[in-house]
Amino acid sequence: MLFHVRMNVKLPANMPADVANEIKAREKTYSQELQRSGKWRHIWRLVGEYANYSIFEVGSNAELHDLLSALPLFPYMEIEVTPLCRHPSSVRDGDA
Amino acid sequence: MLFHVRMNVKLPANMPADVANEIKAREKTYSQELQRSGKWRHIWRLVGEYANYSIFEVGSNAELHDLLSALPLFPYMEIEVTPLCRHPSSVRDGDA
Amino acid sequence: MLFHVRMNVKLPANMPADVANEIKAREKTYSQELQRSGKWRHIWRLVGEYANYSIFEVGSNAELHDLLSALPLFPYMEIEVTPLCRHPSSVRDGDA
Amino acid sequence: MLFHVRMNVKLPANMPADVANEIKAREKTYSQELQRSGKWRHIWRLVGEYANYSIFEVGSNAELHDLLSALPLFPYMEIEVTPLCRHPSSVRDGDA
Amino acid sequence: MLFHVRMNVKLPANMPADVANEIKAREKTYSQELQRSGKWRHIWRLVGEYANYSIFEVGSNAELHDLLSALPLFPYMEIEVTPLCRHPSSVRDGDA
Amino acid sequence: MLFHVRMNVKLPANMPADVANEIKAREKTYSQELQRSGKWRHIWRLVGEYANYSIFEVGSNAELHDLLSALPLFPYMEIEVTPLCRHPSSVRDGDA
Amino acid sequence: MLFHVRMNVKLPANMPADVANEIKAREKTYSQELQRSGKWRHIWRLVGEYANYSIFEVGSNAELHDLLSALPLFPYMEIEVTPLCRHPSSVRDGDA
Amino acid sequence: MLFHVRMNVKLPANMPADVANEIKAREKTYSQELQRSGKWRHIWRLVGEYANYSIFEVGSNAELHDLLSALPLFPYMEIEVTPLCRHPSSVRDGDA
Amino acid sequence: MLFHVRMNVKLPANMPADVANEIKAREKTYSQELQRSGKWRHIWRLVGEYANYSIFEVGSNAELHDLLSALPLFPYMEIEVTPLCRHPSSVRDGDA
Amino acid sequence: MLFHVRMNVKLPANMPADVANEIKAREKTYSQELQRSGKWRHIWRLVGEYANYSIFEVGSNAELHDLLSALPLFPYMEIEVTPLCRHPSSVRDGDA
Repeated sequence: MLFHVRMNVKLPANMPADVANEIKAREKTYSQELQRSGKWRHIWRLVGEYANYSIFEVGSNAELHDLLSALPLFPYMEIEVTPLCRHPSSVRDGDA
Repeated sequence: MLFHVRMNVKLPANMPADVANEIKAREKTYSQELQRSGKWRHIWRLVGEYANYSIFEVGSNAELHDLLSALPLFPYMEIEVTPLCRHPSSVRDGDA
Repeated sequence: MLFHVRMNVKLPANMPADVANEIKAREKTYSQELQRSGKWRHIWRLVGEYANYSIFEVGSNAELHDLLSALPLFPYMEIEVTPLCRHPSSVRDGDA
Repeated sequence: MLFHVRMNVKLPANMPADVANEIKAREKTYSQELQRSGKWRHIWRLVGEYANYSIFEVGSNAELHDLLSALPLFPYMEIEVTPLCRHPSSVRDGDA
Repeated sequence: MLFHVRMNVKLPANMPADVANEIKAREKTYSQELQRSGKWRHIWRLVGEYANYSIFEVGSNAELHDLLSALPLFPYMEIEVTPLCRHPSSVRDGDA
Repeated sequence: MLFHVRMNVKLPANMPADVANEIKAREKTYSQELQRSGKWRHIWRLVGEYANYSIFEVGSNAELHDLLSALPLFPYMEIEVTPLCRHPSSVRDGDA
Repeated sequence: MLFHVRMNVKLPANMPADVANEIKAREKTYSQELQRSGKWRHIWRLVGEYANYSIFEVGSNAELHDLLSALPLFPYMEIEVTPLCRHPSSVRDGDA
Repeated sequence: MLFHVRMNVKLPANMPADVANEIKAREKTYSQELQRSGKWRHIWRLVGEYANYSIFEVGSNAELHDLLSALPLFPYMEIEVTPLCRHPSSVRDGDA
Repeated sequence: MLFHVRMNVKLPANMPADVANEIKAREKTYSQELQRSGKWRHIWRLVGEYANYSIFEVGSNAELHDLLSALPLFPYMEIEVTPLCRHPSSVRDGDA
Repeated sequence: MLFHVRMNVKLPANMPADVANEIKAREKTYSQELQRSGKWRHIWRLVGEYANYSIFEVGSNAELHDLLSALPLFPYMEIEVTPLCRHPSSVRDGDA
């Protein structure tokens, strides 16, 4: 089951650089583990923004919430989730 | 080069069914040709809406505009284009 | 798996009353069948609006889209879908 | 009488973790008491957000305001209240 | 129990004047009956707009919906309902 | 001359409780004086929000601004003013 | 007493040119009479828009509503009214 | 050449009163000089808001930007500029 | 003096194709004349939209309004005008 | 390939003046280098705002993101990117 997720990151202006860097490093590791597991199917940067569009493939709404709320940057993110389904014109096997 | 596109379709309430069906049939053929060519990489339906999120891979902004403005449903669509680039955490080869 | 759905109905001002009534009658029958099947768990009217908040329980995003797009009033609705999951404070068995 | 309530929680970025945890613990206890009393009929988490949709059943507007403004997280919440009534298509006894 | 209601009226541009006048006459009669009954406590015109702010006093959400959806202008209105309760600084007996 | 006023209060998260309480006490006294004078005709709490809808009766725009800008909570409020006039369907003597 | 008014004009696309011209001619006459009377103090065109910003000087809210609702273009306008008062830095006698 | 300008002032909650007062005093002096020069033609307070509508008469866009960005309160303002021109119904000599 | 202009075109769904084509042909001729005269400095298509961003260089607000309101597509456009001035970092002679 | 970029700058109110000045000086140097290289084709100030509209010419989305995210003011900016292509009415060689 596929979900479209937009994540906007807003770090507090007064967060020390080393704190920010440590959170970002954990975020990267966590994201890459989920990508390799197949649950985080795509992640793209929006040009000019500290934001991404992502596609998740999970077994349930609950699993998606668990994955998202465990993001190290979760407390500093605005997240918007849109459920997807197969488009009748799609010719691609994997697209839901 | 990848672009994220949201398309919302709004057919006029008084469009005859056969006219609508003919346009939709041409739209489907056109979309599937572009998908098979690799330029329209993904298309997903938004649950509960007459809308889709799509990913295009094209050589230039101009090519994307030509593809979109040739959509049979183009006169009845609201389209929002967002340029994408590779996310530094991405582990997937194809994601820009 | 639970989803929160808001449906706003906007019938064209020039739709004849008997056409509108026939569509609404089919909508009611369809809605009640889905409610009895357990897939449409709740439906509430918003006071003063031609709109409802509903809770659906379905097996997948695709099933929800199929149910919603088959609504007789679907061409005249704006629909907004929000995926839900169990709240950590919930004490109710059925709430996801 | 039923009300639909959306609650968005925004804790200040500089709130110490133990203060936040203590407030959340009181919030959970308070919420569960109201749920067991029947006044807070449903609570669902929105996937990917620190937010919930809830259904309250109370005797009056004033009772609802008293319940909401006594939430331990109330000073850190944005709350949106929508009055509900029975939908003419509803087949469920309890839905208003 | 008090509710704040904003009503915006949008008549179709092609509605014949006599049809509009007949609906407005019925609206006025209906409104004045409800005002005299005490259920429609206040109605004020917004300067420069075809809109009003009103205060209703009813026994339940359902009663308010029944009153509003029976307005002759209801099919041509956008209505926004806000539940009210007594303000702790109020010195007026009747204000909820 | 009547005006509809919406006031939203947003106290800074780090304001000490005793400072907030002192301001609120002055606000209450001030509000009640104006209510007793007849200039602040109504005040209602919006359910679930730190906000009110109020009706003022004043002799001029300038008088209204003087009353509002002297509110002890004025620096922490968002205020929206809408001029009202008598509705042609009104049956109430006092409503403008 | 001064009011700031924004008027946006939206004529129906299918209104015959002679009907539109006749309404506009009456609008112009009416506007100029009010300007000469001193009640419509200023009117400026917004560059690139079929819209104006105006300043009215009237004795009451009711007078302003009567003037605005008598505009020949009133049924085709969106109007936004903002009450003004003298600014403490103003050096001009006439500005409220 | 005339421009309509809306200025909203938002002073930081923790700015000391004497600092704020000093800035406001300079703002007033500066504003009154520009008014006397004829470049700042009008300034009106919006009732209930820390905001103003103003009319500037300047020789160029650049001159307007220089005047606005030199406002002592500029760093604490949101400013919206709208270019104006003479309205075809205007009877007033000075209105552009 | 430079202005940034966004134009969105919305032709009525029921406009006959030959009428639309005739208007578009006149629009193109008119636009190219203004471009050649130097007053319409730039025009770019927004990818995927029936819209453009343009830069005009004119002597006054009034001149810009005259140019825009004479566009053959003006009755079917939403136009947003933003006055520009030279940026202090600009190194280009022509940019205002 | 051309892109339209809007940049809004919001420096924290408590940033010391010398820190702000140092960042702005680096921003200016960086901007001017990119302008001279031809990649940052235009930059204009919006009158009355701490914001600019810019036109970039780059070889790819990724190049644009790299340029923008390296801006010294990037952490304090809101940036909105719109892909452009040649307008069919354009007569200018360089406009995409």
